[in-house]
Amino acid sequence: MIRVALDAMGGDDAPRVEVEGAVLALRELASTFRIQLVGRTAEIEAALKPHGDVDRARLELVEAPDVVGMGEKPLAAIKSKPRSSIAVGLGLQKRSQSDAFLSAGNTGAVMAAATLMLRLHPGVQRAAIGAPFPTAGKSVLVLDGGANVDCDARELVGFAHLGSVYARDVMGRPTPGVGLLNVGEEDEKGNAVVKEAHQLLKRTAGIHYVGNVEGRDILAGHSRAGPIDVVVCDGFVGNAVLKFYESAGRMFVGMLQQALPDVLGRPEVKKLFKFLDYAEYGGAPLLGVKGVAIICHGASPARAVMNAVRVATQMVESHLSQDIEAEFAEGGAVA
Amino acid sequence: MIRVALDAMGGDDAPRVEVEGAVLALRELASTFRIQLVGRTAEIEAALKPHGDVDRARLELVEAPDVVGMGEKPLAAIKSKPRSSIAVGLGLQKRSQSDAFLSAGNTGAVMAAATLMLRLHPGVQRAAIGAPFPTAGKSVLVLDGGANVDCDARELVGFAHLGSVYARDVMGRPTPGVGLLNVGEEDEKGNAVVKEAHQLLKRTAGIHYVGNVEGRDILAGHSRAGPIDVVVCDGFVGNAVLKFYESAGRMFVGMLQQALPDVLGRPEVKKLFKFLDYAEYGGAPLLGVKGVAIICHGASPARAVMNAVRVATQMVESHLSQDIEAEFAEGGAVA
Repeated sequence: MIRVALDAMGGDDAPRVEVEGAVLALRELASTFRIQLVGRTAEIEAALKPHGDVDRARLELVEAPDVVGMGEKPLAAIKSKPRSSIAVGLGLQKRSQSDAFLSAGNTGAVMAAATLMLRLHPGVQRAAIGAPFPTAGKSVLVLDGGANVDCDARELVGFAHLGSVYARDVMGRPTPGVGLLNVGEEDEKGNAVVKEAHQLLKRTAGIHYVGNVEGRDILAGHSRAGPIDVVVCDGFVGNAVLKFYESAGRMFVGMLQQALPDVLGRPEVKKLFKFLDYAEYGGAPLLGVKGVAIICHGASPARAVMNAVRVATQMVESHLSQDIEAEFAEGGAVA
Repeated sequence: MIRVALDAMGGDDAPRVEVEGAVLALRELASTFRIQLVGRTAEIEAALKPHGDVDRARLELVEAPDVVGMGEKPLAAIKSKPRSSIAVGLGLQKRSQSDAFLSAGNTGAVMAAATLMLRLHPGVQRAAIGAPFPTAGKSVLVLDGGANVDCDARELVGFAHLGSVYARDVMGRPTPGVGLLNVGEEDEKGNAVVKEAHQLLKRTAGIHYVGNVEGRDILAGHSRAGPIDVVVCDGFVGNAVLKFYESAGRMFVGMLQQALPDVLGRPEVKKLFKFLDYAEYGGAPLLGVKGVAIICHGASPARAVMNAVRVATQMVESHLSQDIEAEFAEGGAVA
């Protein structure tokens, strides 16, 4: 049975929301996993009370007295708080007592701790946050979503590999199309790093490289050159577009509510709102580490936590981490 | 009377759409300007025919036999085609025979030609495309929208000045708040260039610097630190977010049409669709050149061309170019 460690102290409304997410996951998802709720166990127990009957055989509480705050400097916090819920949760996985870790806490701290404690697979230069972008069609994975604000061309090629394995294993795309985010499709477009990455990607084996893509192609799910499942960019631009998208969804919902107050109760409108509510989605995987780590939005509601648990189990079941190891062992990282 | 030169051969459906846009502008806007339609005058005359009575006293046709194609390399095209509609249109302004130039043609060629022919104001290191982002509240100007894929910190500070003057003169914001697009609000966030720009902007006189802002703050129109009218970033990330926004609007319209077919005729829905249709908006000014140049989307419909004519007249009437000159003459470019 898959063991998913959940940072109970992570989100903006922890541990209430995390506990509710865990309860939802245990009730609504297939019983292929159990959950390790990591944090201040007394607080977790208190948060469990209102939920009544929970399958405690599949729910373990793991004590971690310290909490990393949202505003703390990641590296310093991880080093000074070895008993934080982040460090304890990842420690379980490091000691093979857990298969996956997810947290809605301090993103930088989770990234730093996961990289330090789980380490990267050989050949992986940088771990990247894979951000799944919902679209009108199939979702598109954008990476890096914010782990690395400066990237060189070879790191971008590494992201193409990481994203391709994730798309194959978790998103069900046997031959994922990979696009490189750029300001135009032509070879000569872009800054020096992107131009070099474009040339490297064109001759990288094992990647179904579609070519340069533009900002408008992400939600379209294709460029003029073909369908795209994965879009590669540095973490600065990826983070900007990701956060922009969240806010665009919120803005459109607000405008709809104002323009069409009488149709808000319709099921098709509720479905649309659900789509536009980015918080509905699970977390973003940190790809490249040895193991499974998922970062959730700090404002994740319980349903997003549940969805992240599902994604975590998919990552474990599909042997994503092993497949990434194999991809990079084949020399895939370097063109 | 303001003289607006309009590249009649620019857009995807030129000269039909440009001519229609000119006719609309002459009919619907205040009569403070006349239009110089630049291009193959025989084709322009033919395109004018279906529109019947047009105020020809305010409409001049200027012959330019060559056309720069959308796929042509900008600099080479400009140098090899001195009689292109772009070169001829900007030439009018250079010789003080026109006050503004707008084109929906090859963006790179318009930028290159405007920079070469009009030149930059002293102190301006790079011209930037100012992209107005419609929001639920007031619009926010994002720059650079794609003119410069690599920027150093001082260039970003220059964009803050350019955007501030534009926001004051054309957007009606007496003390525009300026944000620096980053992955987080804290001082230590971002890549080396952005960190340096943040420090420079904090001590730049004449800029109402709000601080680092995130992708989600653009459409919100404010960060936690205050309201923002202008968001500064390099042209790579600005272009990605700009094109992403266009496509998000299109996607939401499509989803709405599918979810709520029975309400599409309502005026409030039409208003919402108009908002979401980025093509409705006028062009993006190229800021920093001596004069007025506006770049329109290649797919601009006639109404967008008309809106761009209106913006061009506002830029001339508000003495934007002179105000930019003064801003940089005061040493504003360098912190």
